[in-house]
Amino acid sequence: MVELPEKTSAFFEWYLEALEVANLTDKRYPIKGMNVWTPYGFLARRELDRVLIEEIEASGSQPVEFPTLIPQTEFQKEKEHIKGFDHEVYWVTHGGATKLDIPLVLRPTSETAMYPMFALWVRSHQDLPLNVYQIVNTFRYETKTTRPFLRVREIHFFEEHTCQLDEEAASRRVEANLASFAAMARRLALPYLPIRRPEWDKFPGAFYSVALDTPLGGSRTLQLGSIHHYRENFSGPYGIRYETPDGGQRLVHQTTFGLSERLLGAIIAIHGDRRGVVFPSSVAPYQVVVIPIPGKGGVDPAPWASELLSRLRARHLRVHLDNGEERPGAKYYRWESRGVPLRLEVGGREASARSATAVDRLGQKNTVGPEAIEEKVLSLLSTYDDALRTRADSAFRDSFRIARSLQELAGSDRVRLVSWCGSEACGHQVEAGIDGALLGTIVGEPPTPLPAPGPCIACGQAASTAWAAAAHPL
Amino acid sequence: MVELPEKTSAFFEWYLEALEVANLTDKRYPIKGMNVWTPYGFLARRELDRVLIEEIEASGSQPVEFPTLIPQTEFQKEKEHIKGFDHEVYWVTHGGATKLDIPLVLRPTSETAMYPMFALWVRSHQDLPLNVYQIVNTFRYETKTTRPFLRVREIHFFEEHTCQLDEEAASRRVEANLASFAAMARRLALPYLPIRRPEWDKFPGAFYSVALDTPLGGSRTLQLGSIHHYRENFSGPYGIRYETPDGGQRLVHQTTFGLSERLLGAIIAIHGDRRGVVFPSSVAPYQVVVIPIPGKGGVDPAPWASELLSRLRARHLRVHLDNGEERPGAKYYRWESRGVPLRLEVGGREASARSATAVDRLGQKNTVGPEAIEEKVLSLLSTYDDALRTRADSAFRDSFRIARSLQELAGSDRVRLVSWCGSEACGHQVEAGIDGALLGTIVGEPPTPLPAPGPCIACGQAASTAWAAAAHPL
Repeated sequence: MVELPEKTSAFFEWYLEALEVANLTDKRYPIKGMNVWTPYGFLARRELDRVLIEEIEASGSQPVEFPTLIPQTEFQKEKEHIKGFDHEVYWVTHGGATKLDIPLVLRPTSETAMYPMFALWVRSHQDLPLNVYQIVNTFRYETKTTRPFLRVREIHFFEEHTCQLDEEAASRRVEANLASFAAMARRLALPYLPIRRPEWDKFPGAFYSVALDTPLGGSRTLQLGSIHHYRENFSGPYGIRYETPDGGQRLVHQTTFGLSERLLGAIIAIHGDRRGVVFPSSVAPYQVVVIPIPGKGGVDPAPWASELLSRLRARHLRVHLDNGEERPGAKYYRWESRGVPLRLEVGGREASARSATAVDRLGQKNTVGPEAIEEKVLSLLSTYDDALRTRADSAFRDSFRIARSLQELAGSDRVRLVSWCGSEACGHQVEAGIDGALLGTIVGEPPTPLPAPGPCIACGQAASTAWAAAAHPL
Repeated sequence: MVELPEKTSAFFEWYLEALEVANLTDKRYPIKGMNVWTPYGFLARRELDRVLIEEIEASGSQPVEFPTLIPQTEFQKEKEHIKGFDHEVYWVTHGGATKLDIPLVLRPTSETAMYPMFALWVRSHQDLPLNVYQIVNTFRYETKTTRPFLRVREIHFFEEHTCQLDEEAASRRVEANLASFAAMARRLALPYLPIRRPEWDKFPGAFYSVALDTPLGGSRTLQLGSIHHYRENFSGPYGIRYETPDGGQRLVHQTTFGLSERLLGAIIAIHGDRRGVVFPSSVAPYQVVVIPIPGKGGVDPAPWASELLSRLRARHLRVHLDNGEERPGAKYYRWESRGVPLRLEVGGREASARSATAVDRLGQKNTVGPEAIEEKVLSLLSTYDDALRTRADSAFRDSFRIARSLQELAGSDRVRLVSWCGSEACGHQVEAGIDGALLGTIVGEPPTPLPAPGPCIACGQAASTAWAAAAHPL
């Protein structure tokens, strides 16, 4: 059994090897940062998408799909937004041998594709709220180092765009998105911190941005997604207006909610260990793998293994039967490195007893059967998910340290929590102190029981914005 | 109630209006031929995809996703193939302000994206067969008239690509794809004809192509999809080789199977009527709509309507409760034009009796409840689907006429069935006779009981290729 590199000290080496042994992606495609979703990786992504779809639709959003290409003329309508993307979009200039009259952009995100249509769709206050989302690929001509799922040039992207009656309704949609993400993250066993970004780091065109950040070990953090309140910043340029009950015309207030394949990268990064990937059962391509172990003589385990497969599948579990020629140890290793939550070993003795030896990906061993075997498997998966969540939450809480002065920022081996007055000057001093970023103000409960915030660690003024976090974003 | 234009005589007017009243797409997006999938259209597409996914995975294919962009260098490796697409691909030439070293093509189909990777994936005969598929968007700089779902520039595309041991194994995969499509088409209630295309009309790079054609009224046909046997035409240029058990190296034989959103266009075109869209329950965004009809006094139908909604949803039916303010007639019209298979009317009388009046989209009326209401609804949907299939099959059989001479080809108000010797010269004579195309030789059973084929209608030689069809492809 091969051990992967040590995860904390050599994170990226560990990460890339974990992907490799699990065969989740193939990065040998001849364009840098555009990778192939292998069957196993695609299945994980499909389950991830299912979680996002169920939660966002439960919050009253409807699926749509807008075109991949955006005419330059529409793309350039919102100035701030464009400044943010100008240097990282791909341009389509020719169709066949013909030069296009208007160049087209491969969407980096879909504000400028959707909002001209929203201007046609929204007529009256009765059309509001308009909550739609799409799961599509977006494209960014990324110049930083690319890494599968974490930073790529073709991104599997989830984006909700909404139109609301007014600023308050839009703020409520931001809250609803936060609640949806909490439900998604729970199912993915991902701890995270909602953080309101400082002014100088918000999304281009946003009134404010809430990022969903998670520590990745040391002082590194990963932005899993973001939620933005746009006020009228886009509805103005795109003319998205509605008729009020008294016959007036008003611009809508807008919000967006963005997630991506980074969630898969985060699941791998947070749960994985030196034996490889560890999937929560929500996204595991196979939740259970059944491994028959033929003995010398005795009962043939094959028929019982097949029966188990059918019975568990009938309960809508994703189950794989590995009846290949290899020795059991090689199979155990493969399915561990690929992150399967539960392995059922079926030897001659188990076949006679109509039972199985269940070993979960965290090493817990149990006998299941002969009675109520499906219920027992479901219950073991649920126990496993709880244990995985507990382990991740504990590592999460251990990722933070309070810094009470600029001096205490140094040697930042954890994400720093600081009191901050909210001014840009002080924010930049914090950033200089860790040679990283002030992520912003924590929205809602901070991750660990904290004392009341003290004065700003830079200027000593009252820190009205409560706790802020500083770290090295990936 | 507005009637749509007459379907046969004014097909495209009818088609575009049917899409409009059902709100399945928005074609006002500012790029010709790139349309917006509205929520209702997207939901129909999602169900369509589900049918394709279930059937292709049941046939032993695994999902993957390859990048959208293909480097020019890879794209140009197979000469015949490129000739077919050269004039209809979109070119990405710039990333930000930087001119790319190697221009990129937006995939028109994914042979040239996948096959360099297949050359890495396939090493030994044990890696075969390799059967993978993806559902992605493809792009063609279409110069003909575009029409939603039928001919567009951004296409929602299903493509299976396989590698096989030899020519015979590849032929067996073609047969397996034909069987999968038969199962898909049955669920979509789509009659069709598998037709082996003549040499001069096969897919660029194919050894042979089987098209899946369906009549659309008059002498028009629509190609729903196609299955290709590539032999070694691609594996040669891309070097997809395997080691044989005796240590030699052989090129794989390849096949592909392509379908698209055209299936949705075909469902609308074939089943729709003058009141609008008619969906089979397999793809209907809502299979059942519940409409409470408040009366003057009497029992309030709302609680019973809600209970019906929950109970039917618990049986995994897609159900919508329309409890808006409009009068019932307006609701009936809306959901009829949107193709909902079954409407449940719930007035005060029904609420008292815990029953409902069920009216299906073909006009069949029944009372359901108070007993076994879920089973009865499921059974009515099944009866409705059968009736829809019977109606479509009957129209299909009526779409063909035998032509026994070149003279009989004239005035082609139906798809012509002819005896053909198989030569290109005679094929072109048939095409000239109808000013259309010789679609090719019918694979398997022809659509109507036919006599033994006579001599070729052009040259009088024996027609060894049995029946061929000639029509005006859309």
